[in-house]
Amino acid sequence: MKRVAIIGAGQTKFDEHWEKSLRDLSTEAGALALADAKITSKQVDALYIGNMSAGRFVGQEHLGAMAMDNAGLNPKPAVRCEAACASSALAFRQGYMSILSGEHDIVMVGGAEKMTDLKGTGAIATLMGAGDQEWESSIGNTFVGLYALIARAHMKEFGTTREQMAMVSVNNHKNGSLNPLAQFPCEITVEDVLNSTLIADPLRLLDCSPITDGGAALILASEEAAKKLDNPIWVLGTGQASDTLALHDRKSHIEMIATKVAAKKAYEQAGLTSEKIDIAEVHDCFSINEILAIEDLGFCKKGDGGKFVEQGKIARDGEKPINTTGGLKSIGHPVGATGVRQIVDITKQLRGQCGKLQMKGIKNGLALNVGGSGATAVVNILGVD
Amino acid sequence: MKRVAIIGAGQTKFDEHWEKSLRDLSTEAGALALADAKITSKQVDALYIGNMSAGRFVGQEHLGAMAMDNAGLNPKPAVRCEAACASSALAFRQGYMSILSGEHDIVMVGGAEKMTDLKGTGAIATLMGAGDQEWESSIGNTFVGLYALIARAHMKEFGTTREQMAMVSVNNHKNGSLNPLAQFPCEITVEDVLNSTLIADPLRLLDCSPITDGGAALILASEEAAKKLDNPIWVLGTGQASDTLALHDRKSHIEMIATKVAAKKAYEQAGLTSEKIDIAEVHDCFSINEILAIEDLGFCKKGDGGKFVEQGKIARDGEKPINTTGGLKSIGHPVGATGVRQIVDITKQLRGQCGKLQMKGIKNGLALNVGGSGATAVVNILGVD
Repeated sequence: MKRVAIIGAGQTKFDEHWEKSLRDLSTEAGALALADAKITSKQVDALYIGNMSAGRFVGQEHLGAMAMDNAGLNPKPAVRCEAACASSALAFRQGYMSILSGEHDIVMVGGAEKMTDLKGTGAIATLMGAGDQEWESSIGNTFVGLYALIARAHMKEFGTTREQMAMVSVNNHKNGSLNPLAQFPCEITVEDVLNSTLIADPLRLLDCSPITDGGAALILASEEAAKKLDNPIWVLGTGQASDTLALHDRKSHIEMIATKVAAKKAYEQAGLTSEKIDIAEVHDCFSINEILAIEDLGFCKKGDGGKFVEQGKIARDGEKPINTTGGLKSIGHPVGATGVRQIVDITKQLRGQCGKLQMKGIKNGLALNVGGSGATAVVNILGVD
Repeated sequence: MKRVAIIGAGQTKFDEHWEKSLRDLSTEAGALALADAKITSKQVDALYIGNMSAGRFVGQEHLGAMAMDNAGLNPKPAVRCEAACASSALAFRQGYMSILSGEHDIVMVGGAEKMTDLKGTGAIATLMGAGDQEWESSIGNTFVGLYALIARAHMKEFGTTREQMAMVSVNNHKNGSLNPLAQFPCEITVEDVLNSTLIADPLRLLDCSPITDGGAALILASEEAAKKLDNPIWVLGTGQASDTLALHDRKSHIEMIATKVAAKKAYEQAGLTSEKIDIAEVHDCFSINEILAIEDLGFCKKGDGGKFVEQGKIARDGEKPINTTGGLKSIGHPVGATGVRQIVDITKQLRGQCGKLQMKGIKNGLALNVGGSGATAVVNILGVD
């Protein structure tokens, strides 16, 4: 089978960017990825951009054409992919497949979101576009509300504790405190989380990833094109799966079936089992979701995720280092950019470019990007030769 | 090279569907395509859906997961593609590439848009998301305003007349009057167009495609899978290209470079020239755009498009029958569905299923789907063996 490599990676600082537009952020990320790959835009055959809701955030659709403009890629084809918070992992998969299809040789894959332009609760309402409009958002549900229901179910079924969830945030902030591109590069304590404002019982402010502006981009290349360049990181496996849009329609609220199915496919394609994964970036939009991810990716038995966190196994020096650069919680969560940002960070870890956060002796990394309350899950596994 | 076939096609009535939701429309279209292909949803490996702006039209993003829900396709992967009014031709291309990549064998490709739920000028403002938010919509421009500028430039440069533009609408309504799925199945006269309300000089109401609700869907299959089924229609060639998002940034206002580039690629891949195309569905969002399309697809010399129409060459009994089932003008233009609807109609023409509108002796057909004022163009060419 043909292979696809990552030959360039870049990320803007994730932040509240009052002086940068969506276009600025996507252009900056793309330019960083091109510079990193040491190629020019002329060598790029197509662009894939993930974005969730620029139509509502900033009044802009047609994101592919927007991103092409300043990137100097016209008249090449541009595609925007959307699956809520999993939009850019989806863009990554489409770019990957377009290379395997023989249609393209070198592809830019990015994600960008500008969320802070909406006032008041505008961003919260916009994010509910990821849920079921007819059955969830129309009755006033919010995403933290949906994940609070998942947290309650997990606590009831497995005895997962409030403190264990807090430890997810503590771990990710500890890592993120050393990440110069993170929105909140500060350490927090379990007590900080437990004393933070209650948002949707049992979830508190410091269980929640923030609202963020940012962009991230990658350059993908066919095996042939990658061979001419330095340090390719290989796509070892990729999987995507879906579940019902509305939470209440799911078979189970204590697991994400889409994650399991996507992971199974990615593991099979990579020829790896969960035990063999060196590091993972998982989708900690809310702390409980990292606990579900740990279980559903097979890093521990279903129900043991809380204990796994409590035992320090997700720490950088633990058994299965997770969100080694800060996760969505500390780095920030510009929804359409997160999936590619996760892959950028794994790429940098595999190349040994993570400075104080550098993990030693790793050969592969897994990224899990989740859309909505679990209706979409994308798993990508990267590695070095 | 491997080939991809269309083995199923379906379309809802295009209309103001007050009693059907976006979900209803996408489900109905998907069910029609499945029934047409005589397969069950279990045989489908993935779903690609084109949609421009459901976030703003109905408060729903995460369209892939939404469409999976009722289609019974979970846990398979779902992707929403967006490029304004070219969204579903883009979804078609991504589904096509996913089969060529070897990732999928049978794919559902659809498009849906529910536009009539917004009150007042809401739909007009939402559609401007396809333009440049920073430089066009923010100063109050509208799409009919942008196309009026294109029309003025074309009239000045080539002497294209008001009457010639009207004849585009007359032709398309004549065809659409016999299409049971059209929103406005009625004939109109040149006089009707010239006397209709002025919207943006020189364009009048009857130069403009309407605001519409609707869905359309296709089933694509690999050559191997298609061989087991009846009547496959083959994808002979496909091309996509981009231009600047904003109209004022273009090198030319009298042609669409993206259309030319996309068409060149599709012709080359199909091994055909423009002379060899039997019928075409082109993007008549505004009458002037059909004239540009006729020229940019190479059906006549640049500047002669108005005369080409006046001479009756686009009629069903003309030299190059265009929009033989009614075009966007008469059938309606649910923006995210139009690209797939065009391909559905060419499929039906090639199969001989078009009833009173059936074209005789045709072997191929071309579909041109345009996003925004020309920032995205997608050309697909279909044919029989």
